[in-house]
Amino acid sequence: MKPYYKCMLAVHLENGTVAVRRIDPPRRPPGHALLRLIVAGICNTDLELQRGYYGFRGTPGHEFVAEVVEAGDRSLVGKRVVGEINLACGHCDWCCKGLGRHCPSRSVLGIVSHPGAFSEYFTLPESNLHVVPDDLPSERAVFAKPLAAACEILDQVTIPWGEQIAVLGDGKLGLLVAMALDAYGYRVHQFGHHPDKLAIAAARGVHTHLTGGPVPVAAFDFAVDATGSADGLRAAAELVRPRGTLVLKSTVHGAVAVDTAPLIVNEITLVGSRCGRFEVSLPLIEHRIIPVETMIQARFPLSEAPLAFARAAERGTLKVLLEA
Amino acid sequence: MKPYYKCMLAVHLENGTVAVRRIDPPRRPPGHALLRLIVAGICNTDLELQRGYYGFRGTPGHEFVAEVVEAGDRSLVGKRVVGEINLACGHCDWCCKGLGRHCPSRSVLGIVSHPGAFSEYFTLPESNLHVVPDDLPSERAVFAKPLAAACEILDQVTIPWGEQIAVLGDGKLGLLVAMALDAYGYRVHQFGHHPDKLAIAAARGVHTHLTGGPVPVAAFDFAVDATGSADGLRAAAELVRPRGTLVLKSTVHGAVAVDTAPLIVNEITLVGSRCGRFEVSLPLIEHRIIPVETMIQARFPLSEAPLAFARAAERGTLKVLLEA
Repeated sequence: MKPYYKCMLAVHLENGTVAVRRIDPPRRPPGHALLRLIVAGICNTDLELQRGYYGFRGTPGHEFVAEVVEAGDRSLVGKRVVGEINLACGHCDWCCKGLGRHCPSRSVLGIVSHPGAFSEYFTLPESNLHVVPDDLPSERAVFAKPLAAACEILDQVTIPWGEQIAVLGDGKLGLLVAMALDAYGYRVHQFGHHPDKLAIAAARGVHTHLTGGPVPVAAFDFAVDATGSADGLRAAAELVRPRGTLVLKSTVHGAVAVDTAPLIVNEITLVGSRCGRFEVSLPLIEHRIIPVETMIQARFPLSEAPLAFARAAERGTLKVLLEA
Repeated sequence: MKPYYKCMLAVHLENGTVAVRRIDPPRRPPGHALLRLIVAGICNTDLELQRGYYGFRGTPGHEFVAEVVEAGDRSLVGKRVVGEINLACGHCDWCCKGLGRHCPSRSVLGIVSHPGAFSEYFTLPESNLHVVPDDLPSERAVFAKPLAAACEILDQVTIPWGEQIAVLGDGKLGLLVAMALDAYGYRVHQFGHHPDKLAIAAARGVHTHLTGGPVPVAAFDFAVDATGSADGLRAAAELVRPRGTLVLKSTVHGAVAVDTAPLIVNEITLVGSRCGRFEVSLPLIEHRIIPVETMIQARFPLSEAPLAFARAAERGTLKVLLEA
């Protein structure tokens, strides 16, 4: 038995506590690859899992670059990969449409019923993997997952080329959304509270607006709420013109009091939006169209995951990486 | 001065009370027609105005058939008309797009800053009027406004022909929505609590489902919430498949606690929907495609408006008409 197969480090979340444990490495199920972590990103969802979202207990982590250690497909072994996080059945109507991320019997890496990537070793179906080009550094490739989520908007909503789009929020997802929409030729206006964060998008060409008070009313036909707050959602709904479209890109945990009357009177369309296609996001990173690396704010070894989580939870922190 | 110009009966809402008053008739502003009421319909919005929605105080009424008594366009005089309820500026971007119903400086007949149709005489811009064909009885033409609102769904959302659509709610608007979508070739499944109301849609060919408990989960790609209740909105959101579309066709007065997480996880699109085009609804009534008259449940003279409002507010009542 090879040395990596004896025991390994893995992050464990339980009752709000982040711990690092030594546990047995996973066995590789048929069709899965055994992956060795290279680098992972801490996402807001990981922080929500820590707070008890989905009643989670176990190993989180779903943004990663890893090396394939074992796989049925021998050509994958030794390759660096990123991966789709939804483990779908492969047979249902959703899977046949290429929308396995909505497969009703899916598990989700590091979120639902499948141990996550904050672990020296983990497994994922080989069909979920995307090989990282040799000249693409891992610290950039690790953004493939969140950038795919940002690009998902354009898989769902048809927006006329060159249209103005408002993005509310200047957190990690807000910045990726703003830079991705800018890259696709839209005139993006991003509203946020943090000059240093807005500067990242401004350097890419995004029109940024530091907001202290209310945002403009009925000023955009298209807007994206990436604030992650109930107040942000309400502000975003006011920002949109009648017959306009508001994309909900942030999960506000729990029920939000929404006044549906203005949505109906102004005939607003709300579009919930989640994961996206890596086929879209990887080339944007590979060809340096989105400078994702400017969002890295700290790096920790996997063994210091509790510190990394604490850093990621500090107000205003952008991407924190865990390195194996 | 003609006799009708001396004084007239008009309904007056104030502090939840419905009264009938004798007041001076309106003066006809330039560009407006002076209209003599023939028949009007009481809508749920009128009942909400009675309850204080929009801080309303004055004469309500926005579903009507009237005779043109005076107009700048002499060819209109003597004609029976129905009319668009939004009094738009005619010059802004919205008006130029044919969407005066979203004109930001609009007033609204019987709702916002313009006395309504529950009155022997009232005025409306001539450009708002649609002449009722001679052979179309007024008691059917009076449904042009609510049926236009039902048809508005298809002006906003592209639904593949023959698609299954769920309609939640079997009130007035729910029945019109179900019958209109059926008329356009969709396979409509209507869910409601009232066998007698569902029978109206069933007679038209709609598949009706009497619901005592929960509705099916993730069963339709398209659904319309016409329940007018917060519970209905939540049930409707569960009824829709991932990536599906839910049209919000009923105003739930005030803020509703909505859990946005499932909307985002399932990438649901919510579409607020309000008034529609009379050009679409009038022919559906004229050619007897929608048997609107089956929804008439009571008729009262204008002088008995308090009784008419009380009847309309009784649980399960369909359309109550006021006749001048």
